[in-house]
Amino acid sequence: VARRTAGDDVGQEMHRWVSDLFPITRSLTGDGVRTTLAYVAGLLPGLEVHEVPSGTQAFGWTVPDEWNLRSAYVETLDGARVIDSATNNLHVVGYSQPVDLVVDRGELDRHLHSLPGQPTAIPYVTSYYTPTWGFCVSEEQRAALGGGPFHVVIDATLEPGSLTYGELVLQGSSEDEVLLSTYVCHPSMANNELSGPAVTTALGRWLAGAERRLTYRLVFLPETIGSILYLSRHLEHLKRRVVAGWVVTCAGDDRTYSYVPSRLGGTLADRVSLHVLQHEVSAFTRYTFLDRGSDERQYCSPGADLPVCSVMRSKYHTYPEYHTSLDDLSLVTPSGLQGSFDVLRSCLELLEANARWQVTQPGEPALGPLGLYPTTSTKDAAAAVRRILNVVAYCDGDHDLVALADRIGESAFDLLPILSALEESGVVVRAPQER
Amino acid sequence: VARRTAGDDVGQEMHRWVSDLFPITRSLTGDGVRTTLAYVAGLLPGLEVHEVPSGTQAFGWTVPDEWNLRSAYVETLDGARVIDSATNNLHVVGYSQPVDLVVDRGELDRHLHSLPGQPTAIPYVTSYYTPTWGFCVSEEQRAALGGGPFHVVIDATLEPGSLTYGELVLQGSSEDEVLLSTYVCHPSMANNELSGPAVTTALGRWLAGAERRLTYRLVFLPETIGSILYLSRHLEHLKRRVVAGWVVTCAGDDRTYSYVPSRLGGTLADRVSLHVLQHEVSAFTRYTFLDRGSDERQYCSPGADLPVCSVMRSKYHTYPEYHTSLDDLSLVTPSGLQGSFDVLRSCLELLEANARWQVTQPGEPALGPLGLYPTTSTKDAAAAVRRILNVVAYCDGDHDLVALADRIGESAFDLLPILSALEESGVVVRAPQER
Amino acid sequence: VARRTAGDDVGQEMHRWVSDLFPITRSLTGDGVRTTLAYVAGLLPGLEVHEVPSGTQAFGWTVPDEWNLRSAYVETLDGARVIDSATNNLHVVGYSQPVDLVVDRGELDRHLHSLPGQPTAIPYVTSYYTPTWGFCVSEEQRAALGGGPFHVVIDATLEPGSLTYGELVLQGSSEDEVLLSTYVCHPSMANNELSGPAVTTALGRWLAGAERRLTYRLVFLPETIGSILYLSRHLEHLKRRVVAGWVVTCAGDDRTYSYVPSRLGGTLADRVSLHVLQHEVSAFTRYTFLDRGSDERQYCSPGADLPVCSVMRSKYHTYPEYHTSLDDLSLVTPSGLQGSFDVLRSCLELLEANARWQVTQPGEPALGPLGLYPTTSTKDAAAAVRRILNVVAYCDGDHDLVALADRIGESAFDLLPILSALEESGVVVRAPQER
Repeated sequence: VARRTAGDDVGQEMHRWVSDLFPITRSLTGDGVRTTLAYVAGLLPGLEVHEVPSGTQAFGWTVPDEWNLRSAYVETLDGARVIDSATNNLHVVGYSQPVDLVVDRGELDRHLHSLPGQPTAIPYVTSYYTPTWGFCVSEEQRAALGGGPFHVVIDATLEPGSLTYGELVLQGSSEDEVLLSTYVCHPSMANNELSGPAVTTALGRWLAGAERRLTYRLVFLPETIGSILYLSRHLEHLKRRVVAGWVVTCAGDDRTYSYVPSRLGGTLADRVSLHVLQHEVSAFTRYTFLDRGSDERQYCSPGADLPVCSVMRSKYHTYPEYHTSLDDLSLVTPSGLQGSFDVLRSCLELLEANARWQVTQPGEPALGPLGLYPTTSTKDAAAAVRRILNVVAYCDGDHDLVALADRIGESAFDLLPILSALEESGVVVRAPQER
Repeated sequence: VARRTAGDDVGQEMHRWVSDLFPITRSLTGDGVRTTLAYVAGLLPGLEVHEVPSGTQAFGWTVPDEWNLRSAYVETLDGARVIDSATNNLHVVGYSQPVDLVVDRGELDRHLHSLPGQPTAIPYVTSYYTPTWGFCVSEEQRAALGGGPFHVVIDATLEPGSLTYGELVLQGSSEDEVLLSTYVCHPSMANNELSGPAVTTALGRWLAGAERRLTYRLVFLPETIGSILYLSRHLEHLKRRVVAGWVVTCAGDDRTYSYVPSRLGGTLADRVSLHVLQHEVSAFTRYTFLDRGSDERQYCSPGADLPVCSVMRSKYHTYPEYHTSLDDLSLVTPSGLQGSFDVLRSCLELLEANARWQVTQPGEPALGPLGLYPTTSTKDAAAAVRRILNVVAYCDGDHDLVALADRIGESAFDLLPILSALEESGVVVRAPQER
Repeated sequence: VARRTAGDDVGQEMHRWVSDLFPITRSLTGDGVRTTLAYVAGLLPGLEVHEVPSGTQAFGWTVPDEWNLRSAYVETLDGARVIDSATNNLHVVGYSQPVDLVVDRGELDRHLHSLPGQPTAIPYVTSYYTPTWGFCVSEEQRAALGGGPFHVVIDATLEPGSLTYGELVLQGSSEDEVLLSTYVCHPSMANNELSGPAVTTALGRWLAGAERRLTYRLVFLPETIGSILYLSRHLEHLKRRVVAGWVVTCAGDDRTYSYVPSRLGGTLADRVSLHVLQHEVSAFTRYTFLDRGSDERQYCSPGADLPVCSVMRSKYHTYPEYHTSLDDLSLVTPSGLQGSFDVLRSCLELLEANARWQVTQPGEPALGPLGLYPTTSTKDAAAAVRRILNVVAYCDGDHDLVALADRIGESAFDLLPILSALEESGVVVRAPQER
């Protein structure tokens, strides 16, 4: 995997993908997910789309009936639509049951969701496991609804079908795997969540064209039930093979970077993420596992305990637009997406490069004969070789690249040319492969 | 063991016990100890009283002769008593040899102890292992003694007899034991030391009426020689069985809480004590093992190394009234005693509840079917289940209850209802028993 | 090894040795090294001098040709010497090739080294592995050189010969070894480096007259190539035997103390050094291994990984006179040398005394029968025995003397009389020997 390859400037492209996918009515299941995955498959040849029947069991969970929405609206009895999911698909509570009713204002209010603290925002509400129906509106819209009665229509189907997810395995020369997991169940929101699928797609396109040591497993799932289902099908394989993984979510705004560790921290994914964040972004917020909130809840659960963490821009739950209609195409920017892509690609590049080296003999190497030592040792010249010698000093077969770079306080990437030169000159050799 | 059972308000009762026991002339051995243990036995049915003959060897120590005091006084030659142990049994140096002498003021002064810095305090002085005699007085009393000569009488016996200690074992369903050790050798002082026996007695009465998983071993000993003797008789048993223990001392004033760790720290007793103190009192002082000063010196000694620590109110050596007549029934209060009882009972309750749990399958549990998940997932509703899921996240078979609660920053007691519900619903099972 | 023996005041003597050795023209090889070692051998009977032929291979390094300088000067064509190594042997670049040329000022300048920031200092420059020639001058001297042309003469031989080093093994009763390594390749500089050979010599004289448990290996080498060569000849022996070692360098000024740890820190040498520095000097600077710069680069290299660290006065690279003619006999002082001697001797004394003790039975010892306990236990008397009991508390067979002293926050030397008394009285015995 070569660093800083052509095609790096994918921010605009990712933002276009997000824009294309934004209007689609997605939910846990249904045609919105299929349309989304078809779009991704167009960008990621080889993406396999799997359908799992409703009722399938997975670790105590059940794949729900499939939900498809044709339209949902509230109109006055003279046919004036006062709420319409055609204008914003957040207007309907996800997994609402089909209804066709005339209700008074009081009854309608009992099925309305709005946010008093954010008068212009439509909240994002779902009810996957309890049968109900409802609409979401801004406070301003709610205030202007009028007295009713209202004709309420949710033209949807909620019946046995299937759950749909996408999977792409990019084989490397090693059986060690990296898991990238993102979710495709959120309707019209941008940071949480179309940024994750967009960045994952861009990473997949980059990986597809790169020489790979590691094998990459990219999954596009509905959140929670999707990852649980996926775990239930592949648990032993994943436990045996995955050396590092990331949940890719909230990857699109331009405000900050965020890190959520794995359950106990300290895995290769954690070490790689922290190293990259410390060296490649100006600042980031370090959360704890108690602040988690996406599919690491499944991947890191006791019994699975995969080495999976998250590197994000503004983390779910922490930004004001979260889970509302304000999380839109203006919040997510090309440079925000590019930042996530860059950091996560650096993580993968570091994983690809990660190894342990050991010296072939004791003593500091004679750099002169290797062409690396300044020929005249004046007072300051020693500083020029100090870095090389610091690298050699920790080529002890114990420190991997990440640990070595952390030990000497330098970016791992800056050390790679040195390690290559040392390897070529026979000063160091690679120790048995990192797992 | 049920938490916050009836009869919790035992502060007044404990203070009455302390008041009843206060005037008794106690020492390492003798009838004062027997009278004290008889009083305790009246409150703790089943307390066994053991007599160990003078001269018995234990780890290099020898049980001393038994000392019994009938009276000790200093009078002028016209019979006016200027010092009299009948008014305060601290007036006589513990283990003083019997004397009946006429001495001048200079000779008397050589046998007087007082505290220049505390003119109203009678100091507490003993001489267990070197034959001598002496009196303790306040500086004010000393200044008013007059010029003598004086008639000095210590009417005591110091001759082969026995050392007396009490022991109560409350059998639980497990053979794992908890050791509670307190001492009964101090004469008329209240915090150090009648508070310890009072709190230990109250804990014993509570334990006797409680359902017990663990077995409890309560010992009422003379300090140092008593615990060494006890160790010498039961060392292998204690090393095999004791999972946690506390020296109960300085448990009666109302000023602060204190913690002294075991020799290396980190035992179950230490972890439980710190967890309870951090969650149940507003502040406490954390000492090191170098600040120790009671029978943990024996229980934690190399070769014994029992998991024993101390949770106290004002620690010995740290408060101005320590080892003087000012450590009296006004320093020790019902609420001070109650505070010690509450904290130590919480420690025992936490021990009783302590276990390791593990999930029965990977993935976060589907809380909905278990009746624990809010049916409509609005923006804030996730917070309602976060706590449950944090508990589940560390039910990994490694974290015990204390570690789990520390990990997620909550009181272990607040997590118990959650763990019960999770256990009942089959989400988690208990891992093999904590030892 | 007895502490604070006669002959401690060796500062003046060491300073005289430094003064005697100062004018000698030393380099990696050659007669200057031999003269220096002969002087040391006069002070350290038994010092073996080894000669290793040019061309000898060692871990990828090659022993260079031997360099001997007869004279080096620059003169005007009318014979006025404007630079002359007879006035200061730093004037010639070490390992300069022989030349006899007439050059113009421009050509001369290309072979001159001076320090713009230090106008009165002659820099120290060498070119061991690249054939060249050159002169070093102060900026002031350079400005006054005139326009030339100049007659340049370096009357030197650079041809196959040998590398010379000295070695003294002082056998102790144990086969465990302590390595003291210093270097003899620097010409006329005092702190870096004649202080190291002087202090090492003084330590050797003290050790030669002391009762030794440990075996001491003192080596006087040319830096880098010398220690690499030495390692290549003795690696397996050193890895098996050396329990601690020090590179003795920059040991002569009076400004501060410095510590550079071994590669990973925490070895016995590191623990001993830190303990001594913390208790015996008022302040010191704690560097990291990244700040290393002498033969610990070899001894601590992966593959060797000997437990070697450095305790210095002003560390190389950190003081303004470093590697210039200003590092002279006024920078290095008798008291500066004495301070290094004292600290390093304390390190060796601590090593000699280091052991693990364990109690012979549980419980605090009955100090009374041992004559150590105050006979009357008044309020403050317990403090008098607390220290003894703190020592006993950590005689657990795990803590060695250094760890024990660190644990209780006291100087290890202050605990030795206590440990002796405890050992004599049978309270503790020595655990199997520290390695």
